Amino acid sequence: MKILGIDCGSAVTGFGVIESDGRSHRSVAYGAIRTKTREQFAERLRTIADGLDRVLAEHQPQEVVVEGVFHAANSKTALKLAHVRGVALLCGARAGLKVAEYSPLEIKVSVVGYGRAEKEQVRMMVQSLLGLTETVSPHDASDALAAAICHANAVACRWEG
Amino acid sequence: MKILGIDCGSAVTGFGVIESDGRSHRSVAYGAIRTKTREQFAERLRTIADGLDRVLAEHQPQEVVVEGVFHAANSKTALKLAHVRGVALLCGARAGLKVAEYSPLEIKVSVVGYGRAEKEQVRMMVQSLLGLTETVSPHDASDALAAAICHANAVACRWEG
Repeated sequence: MKILGIDCGSAVTGFGVIESDGRSHRSVAYGAIRTKTREQFAERLRTIADGLDRVLAEHQPQEVVVEGVFHAANSKTALKLAHVRGVALLCGARAGLKVAEYSPLEIKVSVVGYGRAEKEQVRMMVQSLLGLTETVSPHDASDALAAAICHANAVACRWEG
Repeated sequence: MKILGIDCGSAVTGFGVIESDGRSHRSVAYGAIRTKTREQFAERLRTIADGLDRVLAEHQPQEVVVEGVFHAANSKTALKLAHVRGVALLCGARAGLKVAEYSPLEIKVSVVGYGRAEKEQVRMMVQSLLGLTETVSPHDASDALAAAICHANAVACRWEG
């Protein structure tokens, strides 16, 4: 199964595509969509949507995963992030795909085994699980790959269950 | 100038198109895009985006206005609303239009002259300003028309200034 993970952010949105049979995972592609701070917010959303549409068209994943929002986080930051999430969910739905959502805690527990893991630990674990020898950068991309791995693990549990 | 006002909501998103010369305004179209509660949130966002794209294509407005989010409101509701706003801003940007944003307070002051006006007062004033004899319904549609009128007034001020 091919899974696209998305780590939303108004400045940098990370994406990661993996292929998984439920036990082992392989990295297909990862990267980041960057927007310009000086641009109107609506324009930045357009850049993100266009970037995600390109990734969806190029890699044709079967499922999409988007990390949830912290309800507790700084409300202005959380609100901005929610706008980007809206756009990411829309891109998934328009590609005809089911969009799964996991909290940051669920993703960290699934990938690192520890809910308060730092971004650096997530990156190391993602590289190890995907057998990558290079350093996955930026953190937004490793977080996106982590979301995809979390979903692959959850789907595998459902199969076995 | 033709202006599209959008009043975002995950269940009901209102829209209102007006034509304005800065002094008098005319209603071109208004209505509401409804989504089904039982549908996945991403699917509901798709319904809203498709509806807004249709309105944009049919009426070809020159400017788009979206009401701002209350930062202080219930955080879960505000976060959901922000997802819908992200989609509305994207639709405007993809139509190649500038998207203006006003707070609910600014819109009420501009249209009713009173920042704490009730939805019913906004509706009455919108009907009066647009010379409509029918009752504009639902409130999401009159709120959207109010946002469009607010923007028409603001643009007129800029011209005169």
